[in-house]
Amino acid sequence: NIERAINTNLSQASTMDGFPRFSDSCKSLLKKHLSPDVYLACAGRVTPNGFTFDAAIQSGVDNQDSGVGLYAGDEESYTVFAPLFDKVIEDYHNGYKPWDTHVSDMDSSKLQGNPDPEGDFVLSTRIRVGRNIRGLGLSPGVSRAQRREVERIVVDALAKMDADLKGKYFSLSNMSEEDRKQLVADHFLFKKGDRFLQSAGANRDWPESRGIFHNDEKTFLVWVNEEDQMRIISMQKGSDAKQIFDRLSRGIDAIEQQVKAAGYEFAHNDHLGYIHSCPTNCGTGMRASVHVKLPNVGKHPNFKQWCEKLRLQPRGIHGEHSESEGGVYDISNKERLGKSEVQLVQTMIDGVKTLIAAEKALAEDKPLPSDLQ
Amino acid sequence: NIERAINTNLSQASTMDGFPRFSDSCKSLLKKHLSPDVYLACAGRVTPNGFTFDAAIQSGVDNQDSGVGLYAGDEESYTVFAPLFDKVIEDYHNGYKPWDTHVSDMDSSKLQGNPDPEGDFVLSTRIRVGRNIRGLGLSPGVSRAQRREVERIVVDALAKMDADLKGKYFSLSNMSEEDRKQLVADHFLFKKGDRFLQSAGANRDWPESRGIFHNDEKTFLVWVNEEDQMRIISMQKGSDAKQIFDRLSRGIDAIEQQVKAAGYEFAHNDHLGYIHSCPTNCGTGMRASVHVKLPNVGKHPNFKQWCEKLRLQPRGIHGEHSESEGGVYDISNKERLGKSEVQLVQTMIDGVKTLIAAEKALAEDKPLPSDLQ
Repeated sequence: NIERAINTNLSQASTMDGFPRFSDSCKSLLKKHLSPDVYLACAGRVTPNGFTFDAAIQSGVDNQDSGVGLYAGDEESYTVFAPLFDKVIEDYHNGYKPWDTHVSDMDSSKLQGNPDPEGDFVLSTRIRVGRNIRGLGLSPGVSRAQRREVERIVVDALAKMDADLKGKYFSLSNMSEEDRKQLVADHFLFKKGDRFLQSAGANRDWPESRGIFHNDEKTFLVWVNEEDQMRIISMQKGSDAKQIFDRLSRGIDAIEQQVKAAGYEFAHNDHLGYIHSCPTNCGTGMRASVHVKLPNVGKHPNFKQWCEKLRLQPRGIHGEHSESEGGVYDISNKERLGKSEVQLVQTMIDGVKTLIAAEKALAEDKPLPSDLQ
Repeated sequence: NIERAINTNLSQASTMDGFPRFSDSCKSLLKKHLSPDVYLACAGRVTPNGFTFDAAIQSGVDNQDSGVGLYAGDEESYTVFAPLFDKVIEDYHNGYKPWDTHVSDMDSSKLQGNPDPEGDFVLSTRIRVGRNIRGLGLSPGVSRAQRREVERIVVDALAKMDADLKGKYFSLSNMSEEDRKQLVADHFLFKKGDRFLQSAGANRDWPESRGIFHNDEKTFLVWVNEEDQMRIISMQKGSDAKQIFDRLSRGIDAIEQQVKAAGYEFAHNDHLGYIHSCPTNCGTGMRASVHVKLPNVGKHPNFKQWCEKLRLQPRGIHGEHSESEGGVYDISNKERLGKSEVQLVQTMIDGVKTLIAAEKALAEDKPLPSDLQ
């Protein structure tokens, strides 16, 4: 069997000679879990599609300030390089074991409550998931031909959206100046990947086969061939997470039907849920986030601990690795795997409710909510 | 045979589905010579070391303003992807055919003349060649382990230089701030590769295993693991090309002896001469250049034609893709392959002599030298 031959051939070259050097200040999960044993089990291996272990860890080697530092180039990366991926996934995803199973639940009717019914703190709410198509590579390992096939399938699918999901696709390589300006103004245009994605190989052939779809109301977006083949996004002003999640759920269903009609399926299994290029996104691939005013909470020395306790992830409002502006934070679920979409949106709603209670308490010099004491 | 199996397996996937798209403004040799036939013959192939055709052309696909757009990841790239490399080499290297042979000649005693004996025009002269070690990958395809081995071999070799070649090695990843400042002041420090090299994969693991050696007089330099494994450089103020070439020749000999003592050899064959990561450098890998004041010649509408006729390549003084400053140009031999080092340095000496004659003629409003009429 030829695939086996490739792996056997290359793994003969596997010694510690190429073991990466990490700086003392490096705190990545890659550094933490890439023991000599794990390295020797993986180095020199390559997936049947030709994605190498070196390619999987390149971003974390080049960018020693990475939080994780590891990417999958295809669905098979998770099994071919399992000795490393399993450990990183267990660490990042709260103890998730190789034998644990993941169940999806997109039923919006189960969601309870609104984190900010008066609308005093939450500016907007946004839920995104990622989806990739089985058999077509993930961004670090996808070929040009596969990336084109992804765009074809997804654009065809999106052309069939109807009712409130109906909209238009804008190709990055073939876009009028007017459309470009409007997409920038709407903050819909995504940029070429940062140095983390660059080192991972995800920027190859930029901007070919990338693009943005949005519905007429600008509340339902699909990014095509960014970090994942699809990033499916539902959002609107305010804090009505239930309505936003419901639209997302309907949109994903509609896309999946068309993907199946084209003879494909989403990459998914019972252990890792929906497959993504970054192992932090496996499972739901979901970030349910709010932009929320927390000027006092954000400055509090325990802010990060509180978020950790509430299983939330704080960011600046200009995406990962950015700073806060004017006391506004982007707060989302931290977990993606081992809990359903409904559970994680509920975690976000409840946690943001608690942080808002803390914000009020700090502003009025009253006791903190009991969850945070 | 396993290597054959890999190639057979991947070439089955070879269709036009992944054929690169080039912009109308793209003028690269990659675009010019990547016909459907050439593409189908190469796409999906991979060298025994695992370097793919897609990797070889990635820089030219990502950077449509490339002049060439094609890199080799290992010595074998030139044969595995010969349908494309042969055409690009023939075009770039003045009609050099796949059956042509290349002969090296480093005998400085054969050089004639000095382009600027009065020292009125030439500020400095610099000759560099590239060398790579057989069996260890070229920068776009080298593994971490191989790159470390290159540094070990070369640093050991350089530690044995004596007399005027004796000097010190500075590792990029392990350099005092004082040394760094001095190397910057001397213009010896090389930077991380540009976007062309980035897309080619040559910046991986930066800055590990890279470094700079120079002799005590600062007239003999070796860059380790930049675009090529070795860039060997001899230079000094003024225009005494013969003396500069003599020092280069002795330095290369001394390094080669040590490389052989370590059980290795330079990658070299009778057709391509010394193997380099960029096909423009095959053969001699030599740039013999002067920084020369040509304020009138440089502004003349025929400047580029003249250089082309004299087989010279003009650049700005801050390297490739840079502009001139104060009428000073970097002028070098354009050719690298099919002529010996001695012949090409002589071409540079003679051509610069002609350009200086033209500069005098233009300044004094006299007739141009007959070569340029």
